[in-house]
Amino acid sequence: MNNQKLITPRKLQGFWELMPKQQMLFSSLLNRIEEVFKANCFLPLDTPILEYSEALLAKSGGETDKQVFRFLKGDTDMCMRYDLTVPLARFVSMHKNELSFPFKRFQIGKVYRGERPQKGRFRELYQCDADIIGNETLSEVADAECINLFEKCFNALNLDVNILVSNRKILAGFIQDINFEEKSTEIFIVLDKLAKIPYEDAMKQLIEIGLSKTECEKLIALTKTNGTFKEVKKSISNLCQNEIFQKGLEELENTFKYLEILGNNSIVCDLSIIRGHNYYTGTVFEGFLKNSEYTGAVGGGGRFENLCSYFSDTKMPGVGMSVGITRLFDVLLAENYFDLSQANEIECAVVTFDETFEAGLKLVSKLRQNDIKAESFYENKSFKSQMKEANRRQVKYVLIVGEDEVKTGNYTLKNMTTGEQISLELNQIIEHLKDDRMASAMPNNNN
Amino acid sequence: MNNQKLITPRKLQGFWELMPKQQMLFSSLLNRIEEVFKANCFLPLDTPILEYSEALLAKSGGETDKQVFRFLKGDTDMCMRYDLTVPLARFVSMHKNELSFPFKRFQIGKVYRGERPQKGRFRELYQCDADIIGNETLSEVADAECINLFEKCFNALNLDVNILVSNRKILAGFIQDINFEEKSTEIFIVLDKLAKIPYEDAMKQLIEIGLSKTECEKLIALTKTNGTFKEVKKSISNLCQNEIFQKGLEELENTFKYLEILGNNSIVCDLSIIRGHNYYTGTVFEGFLKNSEYTGAVGGGGRFENLCSYFSDTKMPGVGMSVGITRLFDVLLAENYFDLSQANEIECAVVTFDETFEAGLKLVSKLRQNDIKAESFYENKSFKSQMKEANRRQVKYVLIVGEDEVKTGNYTLKNMTTGEQISLELNQIIEHLKDDRMASAMPNNNN
Repeated sequence: MNNQKLITPRKLQGFWELMPKQQMLFSSLLNRIEEVFKANCFLPLDTPILEYSEALLAKSGGETDKQVFRFLKGDTDMCMRYDLTVPLARFVSMHKNELSFPFKRFQIGKVYRGERPQKGRFRELYQCDADIIGNETLSEVADAECINLFEKCFNALNLDVNILVSNRKILAGFIQDINFEEKSTEIFIVLDKLAKIPYEDAMKQLIEIGLSKTECEKLIALTKTNGTFKEVKKSISNLCQNEIFQKGLEELENTFKYLEILGNNSIVCDLSIIRGHNYYTGTVFEGFLKNSEYTGAVGGGGRFENLCSYFSDTKMPGVGMSVGITRLFDVLLAENYFDLSQANEIECAVVTFDETFEAGLKLVSKLRQNDIKAESFYENKSFKSQMKEANRRQVKYVLIVGEDEVKTGNYTLKNMTTGEQISLELNQIIEHLKDDRMASAMPNNNN
Repeated sequence: MNNQKLITPRKLQGFWELMPKQQMLFSSLLNRIEEVFKANCFLPLDTPILEYSEALLAKSGGETDKQVFRFLKGDTDMCMRYDLTVPLARFVSMHKNELSFPFKRFQIGKVYRGERPQKGRFRELYQCDADIIGNETLSEVADAECINLFEKCFNALNLDVNILVSNRKILAGFIQDINFEEKSTEIFIVLDKLAKIPYEDAMKQLIEIGLSKTECEKLIALTKTNGTFKEVKKSISNLCQNEIFQKGLEELENTFKYLEILGNNSIVCDLSIIRGHNYYTGTVFEGFLKNSEYTGAVGGGGRFENLCSYFSDTKMPGVGMSVGITRLFDVLLAENYFDLSQANEIECAVVTFDETFEAGLKLVSKLRQNDIKAESFYENKSFKSQMKEANRRQVKYVLIVGEDEVKTGNYTLKNMTTGEQISLELNQIIEHLKDDRMASAMPNNNN
């Protein structure tokens, strides 16, 4: 076996892989988001990562086609999912007679982008999605619920975000009103990048589409409207009498009314929010970190008129939210948001001598039975090297088990941060460690 | 959009997908296993699902090759992982200078088998793996820890299992002793299926390999040895003086000694355990459900001499365990082990009239803030249809919100199981629902 050529261990480019302590933190964020979803009565789904290409690519056309991992296995043309929404549509269409509507489901899972590896782009990333799907109809309560849920996710992560909400019917109605309905996709593409390109370039691109200078100015001014919903309504309600425009305004009004009932009073109405994907047809929203240099959205969502149009004749309106947790975590790591030294899989190392090794192992077992994360460094033979290992691993507590300690049942518990040593019986040790854990977990603790 | 041809919504054959209530249960099992891993100081890893084919197929040869999802993306030859062990080897080899050893990691994730879809075989399945990797050396404490952990996983799932432990060196030593070392792979393949084929067929196959009738009988008798370790040792220790045989016995003795220290006294020594994969070189173990008709192993593990031999010159011995949770859950579902009606995402439905709808929604929000899974059936307009929906969804509690209730702040809480109704203020409702939740969660409750 040693004669063979060694293979250089590499992971695929553009694929994300955290070191264990980072992973501890990342997993805890995922868990917190999952708890929020469950607390709000969303049901879990876990669809396969592979789907028939026919189903996955139904709505997406050529561009997505290139950006997916697609392959043949035998005769079967399959793809790795590039989002969690199309699998949801496929699932709901398959099981619509068995599900209760509105169907509230969450899914936290990896999605795949087959694009060329490049800095800052992930080819495998997690999405935390929650959606509410109606059967034929769906009240704006659902829109408000998704925005409320989105805010709760960030609260659970202790992150301050600005959440901006719009309704695409307002811009769509305006565009229809100036008779550019047929060009609305192109116009939305320009409006979607307004924040990133100079005003003149946007004007130029809109004029190329065919809009007059005055129309361009009015449209851009419209997207720049923001404030409380009441302020926005006051400023635009007489702008145009187009039916879709007024419908958008009405939906937005209902959404904000329900948001207030749900206790969200600080959410901003901002008509610049477009949210790329062209399947959104009503409410759209995005979240932006408040205390970060990262200016992109860290998630968002919106309303789609008909989730299942490619699979079913039944109209199934939906509204959903998604936290871009991979990007978010990447930003937080880069900005040193976390104190990685606080992430430790070991609460207490049991340090022994040759003669007390087995007694120490028994203590590890008892501590674990009592829900203390205890560890024995059994590969480090000497007392000294075990202490060194505890230090190197930044373990907070060490339990010293000498022959006397085994005889008396009083062990020395050393706090490696303060150097403090106390002699305690096993039950007292368990109590002490649990109290310390509680104190550390308390918000605003001064330790 | 409605003119286009609809696509039949299908999932890929052989891929597993649970309905939401089943998924609630399945996720809770995964969470419990994860808690066990963390409580025993294992660190989380989450490697990508895709790997370079070169890395993934290094050790496997032709057979696995056919059973993987493998494809080219651009020039890159990649595969979906078929287990969590090879990615672990790749990760440890890449980061061996940054990790602390013994490196204890767990990973719960999906793996992929590209085999032909057939009944009872899954092409996407979860594995719950925990491994301990040493740098050059690794004590049998680690073997005992993995077996101990394996038992704890099943305890956390409230499942009774028989855990059988062996050490492959015992059979390997015997085979060497009778001078069939070069044929040991073929012999192990026959021994591995002893439980499934008639004795005569096994004899015939071993004789074809070249063993004499007496050797066959001795070897098969050896695999049929089981009992406490002491009983097994007594019965076989003088059977052969081969060094590897005696080494296996010694390792097994240490493993059982440490198991006893860790509190596992009921684990059986059974030399029939081979555990297929030929990378195991020492300890091997498997778990079997006690109260089930399913006779296959629901997990197991073992010791491998050198995890990273394909990637690195450093010798890295490891020992690991894996719970085959997809198969296990499938068996438990088929045997009606779960009461799915108990899995409900809603604890309390708030039922309103037209005039009290908004007051009801505010109550839902307040209940959720207080950690009660409350829901409003906002698509069902009338009181009657909301009650019907609560019934249909088997929600245990309904909060009735009429105009009088809103005025007085005393709401009617109805237990839908018993029909009992009580009038309570919001704080009392929260308390009542939490008490009920505690009572339901108590083991051996008589409710």
